[in-house]
Amino acid sequence: MYLAMNRFKVIEGQETEFEDVWKNRKSSLNEMPGFVEFHLMRGALNEDEGYTLFASHTVWKSEDDFIAWTKSENFKQAHKNAGNNKKLYLGHPNFEGFKSVVGA
Amino acid sequence: MYLAMNRFKVIEGQETEFEDVWKNRKSSLNEMPGFVEFHLMRGALNEDEGYTLFASHTVWKSEDDFIAWTKSENFKQAHKNAGNNKKLYLGHPNFEGFKSVVGA
Repeated sequence: MYLAMNRFKVIEGQETEFEDVWKNRKSSLNEMPGFVEFHLMRGALNEDEGYTLFASHTVWKSEDDFIAWTKSENFKQAHKNAGNNKKLYLGHPNFEGFKSVVGA
Repeated sequence: MYLAMNRFKVIEGQETEFEDVWKNRKSSLNEMPGFVEFHLMRGALNEDEGYTLFASHTVWKSEDDFIAWTKSENFKQAHKNAGNNKKLYLGHPNFEGFKSVVGA
């Protein structure tokens, strides 16, 4: 199991709009070999810094499956409009990849 | 779906020992209502700061199920020896909880 997380600091007050972007997007991730599941996850509000943490949370069978996706036309299509949403979050999304070392 | 993640900055060179702690622990999480699955996840090495990011990654049906566990005897037992492993990571583990807002 490989987990690809992209962390977004969504500006306070923009949370619903950010969620709507993800709810309304067309995704064809499930056409990709090794894709297991996708969730958009909402974390805590950081009141001092004025953002709510969100994470796109995508599970793949292996890191190789994830890497193959990042090089695919599917990936390019999934990100072609991503720039339009930059106004909703602070800075850049922060990518973190994880491999399972304990657990099924 | 609710995700409880605890992030650890494991000192470079201590990764295997840290993994072994988790591999060898006795867990009875699966006795808890609402528990879905547990993984220990290994992330990237931060060479500049001398640590590898790890995350305990526990999925629950709901945040209420997670909170009930944190108040249980099961939780107390699970953490009674946690202090012995502090030498393996920098600072304190950093907890982050997430609720699914998009995705099954």
